[in-house]
Amino acid sequence: MQKILVIPDSFKGTLTARQVCRILDKAILRQLPHAETICIPAADGGEGTAEAFLSVLGGVTVAETVQGPHGQTVSAVYGLLSDGTAVLDMASCAGLTLAGNHLDPEKTTTYGVGQLILSALEHGAKRILLGLGGSATHDLGCGMAAACGARFYDGEGQTFVPTGGTLHRVASIDLSHMDARLETTPLTALCDIDNPLLGPEGAARMFAPQKGADEAMLPRLEAGSRHLSQLWLAQTGQDLQSISGGGAAGGMGAGVCAFFRGSLRPGMDALLDAADFETLARDADLIFTGEGCLDGQSLHGKAVISLARRAKALGVPVAALVGGVRGDPAPLYECGVTAIFPINPLPQTLEESAPFAADYLARTADSVLRLLAAREGTL
Amino acid sequence: MQKILVIPDSFKGTLTARQVCRILDKAILRQLPHAETICIPAADGGEGTAEAFLSVLGGVTVAETVQGPHGQTVSAVYGLLSDGTAVLDMASCAGLTLAGNHLDPEKTTTYGVGQLILSALEHGAKRILLGLGGSATHDLGCGMAAACGARFYDGEGQTFVPTGGTLHRVASIDLSHMDARLETTPLTALCDIDNPLLGPEGAARMFAPQKGADEAMLPRLEAGSRHLSQLWLAQTGQDLQSISGGGAAGGMGAGVCAFFRGSLRPGMDALLDAADFETLARDADLIFTGEGCLDGQSLHGKAVISLARRAKALGVPVAALVGGVRGDPAPLYECGVTAIFPINPLPQTLEESAPFAADYLARTADSVLRLLAAREGTL
Repeated sequence: MQKILVIPDSFKGTLTARQVCRILDKAILRQLPHAETICIPAADGGEGTAEAFLSVLGGVTVAETVQGPHGQTVSAVYGLLSDGTAVLDMASCAGLTLAGNHLDPEKTTTYGVGQLILSALEHGAKRILLGLGGSATHDLGCGMAAACGARFYDGEGQTFVPTGGTLHRVASIDLSHMDARLETTPLTALCDIDNPLLGPEGAARMFAPQKGADEAMLPRLEAGSRHLSQLWLAQTGQDLQSISGGGAAGGMGAGVCAFFRGSLRPGMDALLDAADFETLARDADLIFTGEGCLDGQSLHGKAVISLARRAKALGVPVAALVGGVRGDPAPLYECGVTAIFPINPLPQTLEESAPFAADYLARTADSVLRLLAAREGTL
Repeated sequence: MQKILVIPDSFKGTLTARQVCRILDKAILRQLPHAETICIPAADGGEGTAEAFLSVLGGVTVAETVQGPHGQTVSAVYGLLSDGTAVLDMASCAGLTLAGNHLDPEKTTTYGVGQLILSALEHGAKRILLGLGGSATHDLGCGMAAACGARFYDGEGQTFVPTGGTLHRVASIDLSHMDARLETTPLTALCDIDNPLLGPEGAARMFAPQKGADEAMLPRLEAGSRHLSQLWLAQTGQDLQSISGGGAAGGMGAGVCAFFRGSLRPGMDALLDAADFETLARDADLIFTGEGCLDGQSLHGKAVISLARRAKALGVPVAALVGGVRGDPAPLYECGVTAIFPINPLPQTLEESAPFAADYLARTADSVLRLLAAREGTL
């Protein structure tokens, strides 16, 4: 084997995608000292998205002081890639970790995200990628839009910046004062889920609880979201409820499409495009990927699946090293995953195994590489 | 891949070696319909040893009514192979399962094993292989020898059949009346452990507790074994304590060497010889093996290790599919194990995973085969 790509997702709570890259890179060097390796830590739209793109394309990081989820001052960093793309992690200024113990999706705002967008425009960004993971908000991106010049009026004709708890008070929306540079600067939100804005699979029901919503708050968030969605439909004819992924990040998916005429796509696909995956992978002998847990029954939104589909088109085998794999693997094979190797060497619980994940991952890679090398006469 | 050998041990308590063979054979057929497979369930000397040899060499089974561990009547079966070898499982007439709830290594006897040996001689056996696993006894093979004509005298000159609790009463041993056919019929005990007869790693300390010995009984068993060993040394000059594996099966390893001038060898080595492994494996592309649990720190006595060493000499890769692997795998690699794949797909306990072992094993084989096939352009 001459050339191996390493494109893993994180093992959530155990190893970052970057750590997985380093471990697998070392294993390849150990077993196949002459092989070329290319490592790309996957971006699933969550924290680390900007970093992942920077590692692929190069560029600079820009630090900006903006509003945090509670309006507090935070220093957020984003990436300005060498090709003129700005990559923003929503979590950097509206994320759960910044909200600390004060989780309240009725009050938190994405205003800082809009400020980062303005900063990117100031820095001459030609296009903007916005990672949607890890948010603490449910404001449908109203805060972000307001920071960029959108005006939200209440019933008395007063402007205000809506949050999850005040969406129902929006009476009309005026985008005519938004920053003109946005007209020529496409915004793409990176999002690995396909949940709609409303309903049982929607933003409130599925994601608000982890942002601090209690049972009583859920119908209020749902009603506020529905109100804004209906208002927008009446005002523009655009149906936000039909957007796959519109429910991502507290309705930010819908907000990007509504207020920025943006689009949504899986983070891995955007990253693979940025990395020029098809050119890199065309002559690769193997792709290693990794993931905390794969599920044969739930294929949507997994970085591994995006990768496998594109590798399959090129005929390059994909070996997935995983913390766990649930259910029938046949659908995963169908998507282009060639083989799945769980890393846990013993029957033991996650608590017992997690501290040794790095070692277990290295050993699993060793075995896979040793077997391939032996078959190819190079062990 | 054209030719794959499947030579697994059992996954103790979960899957027999035969079941593992069937599962892997099906997996190979599924992924590589045109590959030739040769399946040999491993024999570790325990129950199933005769069956394993029969499956390799063919032959007939002989049923014989003999004494069980408590002197009760049992029907025991052994194999008479087509090449004239008789293969006996000690467990078939002196095994733990036959002793039921009445485990008592001071009282149990290997007399029935001697009766089976006589039966094999009657049937014209040219050589005898005796699997030592799963015994309920600690009589150093005195019962077996007595059945074949050995006479054990007590201090009053009376003959008796010693058991674990009466070894100390043996005053002299007379082998002159043993069946004359034994002179020309070599007896080889199959034994995958190297414990000596006496001492902290010896038969009493290591194995008597699982045969029902309590703490008080252990020094008595040890003293009886030491007495017989010293008597034998004085009478013949042969030092039983120096025999590697002499402590196997309640000192049966020592007894085979003493009373039958027999020898000990690992069951897997004998089986691979019988199967003409080197000829079978020379043009094999891969060997699948399996084992409930591999341990990098403890390499002695594992069927997988015997197999790997011989495969390494031929340059054939060995993929070990295992319930678990403990410790550093480097020593296993050194022995010739190419790659180790644990079958547990999720972090979970043995209790949770054991019921699904067959399915997990099949999936692991699928992944290994799919990856190799993909690399070789045949997936």
